[in-house]
Amino acid sequence: MKAVVFDAIGSPRDVLYLDDVPVPRIGDGEVLVRMVSASVNPGDFLFIQNLYPEPKKPHFPRQIAGNHGAGIIDAVGANVALKPGTLVAFSYYNSWGEYAAVPAEWLIPLPADYPLERAGQMVNPITAWDLLADSRVQPGQWLAVTAGYSSVSTMVMQFAKRRGINVIALVRRSHDRLDLKRLGATATLDLSDLKVGIREAVMDMTGGAGLNGIIDNVGGPASGELIRTLAMGGQMVINGGMSSERFELHNFDVLLSGVEIRANIYRYFFSPPVEADRPVLREIVDIFGQPDFHISVGGIHPLAQFELAVANSLDRADLGKQIFRM
Amino acid sequence: MKAVVFDAIGSPRDVLYLDDVPVPRIGDGEVLVRMVSASVNPGDFLFIQNLYPEPKKPHFPRQIAGNHGAGIIDAVGANVALKPGTLVAFSYYNSWGEYAAVPAEWLIPLPADYPLERAGQMVNPITAWDLLADSRVQPGQWLAVTAGYSSVSTMVMQFAKRRGINVIALVRRSHDRLDLKRLGATATLDLSDLKVGIREAVMDMTGGAGLNGIIDNVGGPASGELIRTLAMGGQMVINGGMSSERFELHNFDVLLSGVEIRANIYRYFFSPPVEADRPVLREIVDIFGQPDFHISVGGIHPLAQFELAVANSLDRADLGKQIFRM
Repeated sequence: MKAVVFDAIGSPRDVLYLDDVPVPRIGDGEVLVRMVSASVNPGDFLFIQNLYPEPKKPHFPRQIAGNHGAGIIDAVGANVALKPGTLVAFSYYNSWGEYAAVPAEWLIPLPADYPLERAGQMVNPITAWDLLADSRVQPGQWLAVTAGYSSVSTMVMQFAKRRGINVIALVRRSHDRLDLKRLGATATLDLSDLKVGIREAVMDMTGGAGLNGIIDNVGGPASGELIRTLAMGGQMVINGGMSSERFELHNFDVLLSGVEIRANIYRYFFSPPVEADRPVLREIVDIFGQPDFHISVGGIHPLAQFELAVANSLDRADLGKQIFRM
Repeated sequence: MKAVVFDAIGSPRDVLYLDDVPVPRIGDGEVLVRMVSASVNPGDFLFIQNLYPEPKKPHFPRQIAGNHGAGIIDAVGANVALKPGTLVAFSYYNSWGEYAAVPAEWLIPLPADYPLERAGQMVNPITAWDLLADSRVQPGQWLAVTAGYSSVSTMVMQFAKRRGINVIALVRRSHDRLDLKRLGATATLDLSDLKVGIREAVMDMTGGAGLNGIIDNVGGPASGELIRTLAMGGQMVINGGMSSERFELHNFDVLLSGVEIRANIYRYFFSPPVEADRPVLREIVDIFGQPDFHISVGGIHPLAQFELAVANSLDRADLGKQIFRM
């Protein structure tokens, strides 16, 4: 079978190549998934650069790239209740290949007619859902999201709109391709066209109330400014670090307004879904599958076009999510 | 009665003065406390500078300074179960005076023979107890505390030692007056005498494991270095900001090791003790009252010596806690 693999830690631009590898064998409790779709995510790049903590580490030679995707169950091992033919999504390993062996407990079953480009990126709405919850912002309060055009941020906005949460979307430059206000943003803050300081702009937009939460995918000086705009008890949830820059923080920026700064670790990073997760997963699957829930697909590629998928994902995040279709 | 008061927001060096003010009247549910002891704390200075959030704001004219102290119940209003003559500690308002009116629910009763200089600073062991819990460091793991000679830090060390938690105490310069290792520090890191980077020193001291928690009273560049030394899931609890400097943070410093940075807000800052707190308060009172629990008293002053008490607290934190005795 074809797969996008790597033999050394490095930049995804440098170390990936397409190869023929054996179809994996499955053991007890495992499922062979014939992949149909997989997404390209910043986290996939961290894996290739070996920046993830244990146990999420590549194993050489020929580590298959990609940690998120969807496919149809081709075969099941002993003690598996799922049936061949079922469409499933997962976050695990080895998604950028034609087949993947996945322990059954990691699989999220999907309706048979689920849109495949959505099935391949279930990691994004689950992340967006959890980010919004973790921000603890309540209806009528104010949330800022950075990288406003990113897939996860546009999903956060749509979930927030359903809950009556006000969202300020920060973008590095605005473009016409995507109307963030239609998706749910109350206001857009274009950092390339800022006439006043971020703090002043945010205080103006929020009528002096300040932010109750920040979901930050970028970092750099703007993140420090946003933290200093948080109201009492405000939460900052860090989900990415697209900027190479740091931000500056005085202890009082945290202490005097009771701020919390936390990492968002994807809920299925270390462990598979538990039974108690199943109802909310069905709710997320349902909302995300609706045609009026906007997704921003920047390109759909065969595995052989992995170089373009990776380059677009790194250089043209504004285009939208890059997807493999097998 | 005599009280240390202020009529304007400003530096405690500038705005405080001693005055004669009326003994407060008490209403239903309130208690008149004849003060015997009160402590001088960084938080008291924030109150004088109006840096606290609502509702903790001074009211002029003649706002009495001081938010923590102890005294003997002189009179009680209707619906108060506590008896006159009881020694009580509290964190509320108006502690730097000869009498204070305090709602009964805010009071922490103490044994009649409790050492008065300890009674006046109950805020410190309660804070230290909560900081240690909030750091989530487990027995055998590693905790760093900054401002190692400070009252709260030395109390954290003593509680940590009882629980088998390893503590690295950071100090700006070591002195002989206080042996932090005797109090419970596993190691002392003298920032004035550092031969290697903080990260290298910490990794060496912890045998490569890194820190599981930081309790930070200082801030500045060292705090950024400490955060980058946290192991997976490490917690940083900010309790003060003695340094005027900021530290720098990249989003990945938080994201890739699942770090949390939080403020410690004193548990009785916004609301009084609840019934469920009473057993742990009794435990803290008991441990803190034992003669072998070390406290570092830097000076005991009448109210009239408030200028010296404030100056020593600001300039000579290494001396220990400044206390008023009425």
